[in-house]
Amino acid sequence: MDDEAPGLPRRPRADGQRTRQLILREAVSLATVDGLEGLSIGNLAKALGISKSGLYAHFGSKQELQLATVDEAGRIFQAEVVEPALAAPAGLAQLVAVCDAFFDHLQRRTLPGGCFFAGAALEMGTRPGPVKERVAGFQGAFVGLIRQFAAAALRQQQLPAAEDPDFLAFELNGIILAADTNFVLHDDTGVLDLARQVVRRRLGVAPAQLDAGDDLR
Amino acid sequence: MDDEAPGLPRRPRADGQRTRQLILREAVSLATVDGLEGLSIGNLAKALGISKSGLYAHFGSKQELQLATVDEAGRIFQAEVVEPALAAPAGLAQLVAVCDAFFDHLQRRTLPGGCFFAGAALEMGTRPGPVKERVAGFQGAFVGLIRQFAAAALRQQQLPAAEDPDFLAFELNGIILAADTNFVLHDDTGVLDLARQVVRRRLGVAPAQLDAGDDLR
Repeated sequence: MDDEAPGLPRRPRADGQRTRQLILREAVSLATVDGLEGLSIGNLAKALGISKSGLYAHFGSKQELQLATVDEAGRIFQAEVVEPALAAPAGLAQLVAVCDAFFDHLQRRTLPGGCFFAGAALEMGTRPGPVKERVAGFQGAFVGLIRQFAAAALRQQQLPAAEDPDFLAFELNGIILAADTNFVLHDDTGVLDLARQVVRRRLGVAPAQLDAGDDLR
Repeated sequence: MDDEAPGLPRRPRADGQRTRQLILREAVSLATVDGLEGLSIGNLAKALGISKSGLYAHFGSKQELQLATVDEAGRIFQAEVVEPALAAPAGLAQLVAVCDAFFDHLQRRTLPGGCFFAGAALEMGTRPGPVKERVAGFQGAFVGLIRQFAAAALRQQQLPAAEDPDFLAFELNGIILAADTNFVLHDDTGVLDLARQVVRRRLGVAPAQLDAGDDLR
């Protein structure tokens, strides 16, 4: 494994970047098990089988490591949840797609402890500072995205006019959090099938063909 | 503070029980900050200013302490959330009351890190064993209670006949989890006011008079 020190690059920059990304990917996984606070340069070095000094070359402090881990979790979430939703037609279809993409993200078991941000939000609640702010910013942006999809669906008259985009975003974020909590507790994909149907019923769209999720890995 | 050893009671049994309860109350609070895994006899002794041997007299092992902590959290939840709901008229009023009692529980800031069970569920996800099972049992019983209130409301035709009690219980548990996550992240009672209105809108009942919550402490 890469063990370069800052200012003394023994490998091209692209390799260092790749190593950094591998480290952060492991850090995101570990944080869903032991928490962002449980994440230390020592634990991470042990999990990766590399030296602590190798890690210090990438991250100068625990907080820097935590912030970089939140950013990497954000990139994973963007690729697995946000991008599939944005690929759907604007409006109601995006609203269903963003929830389905979240349930698929859980079903794929990308991370051992379920949704990184659901856990990080509760863990960081009593720990004011830049890490909590970054998690809160992410959470706010995600609910804002759901709200934007809901507002588009309302403009296109795909939802009853009495619906409120703020209320609906709150509810759908809630269904997403309930799915995460129940899936993490019971490790049962039936929870995700139920969540997919709850979303459809709530939004007045036809029930899902539930064998679709079976292909996920 | 009480420092009795098992088999050598220096105080009457009632005092030992009271001490045990004070210890567990602190353990529940600490667990909402550092997690159930972060709870150790050493940390707890430090927080309480008593000796580790005094704690070992009450709890023989970390697992025993964790299980007793989950049970104590269950008693707090029963008193602050379940009992106020059961005091409301059966049906729709209980459905609103259980959500309101949960939001009041958060607003009262009974525990520093918000809902004990929301955090414990995500934390214990990757840790199979009796502690996870007890948390899951509690979570399942709570959703079952919401379902029972929903079924009663349906029998009394207080909700549209197309509603499904399982779906509705999933959604309301989700609104509760979203309120906890947002309140923990933003420490803003506006989140709870919004959650109270979201519940009412979802159930088709009149909006709440929101100054009611201002008396809470």
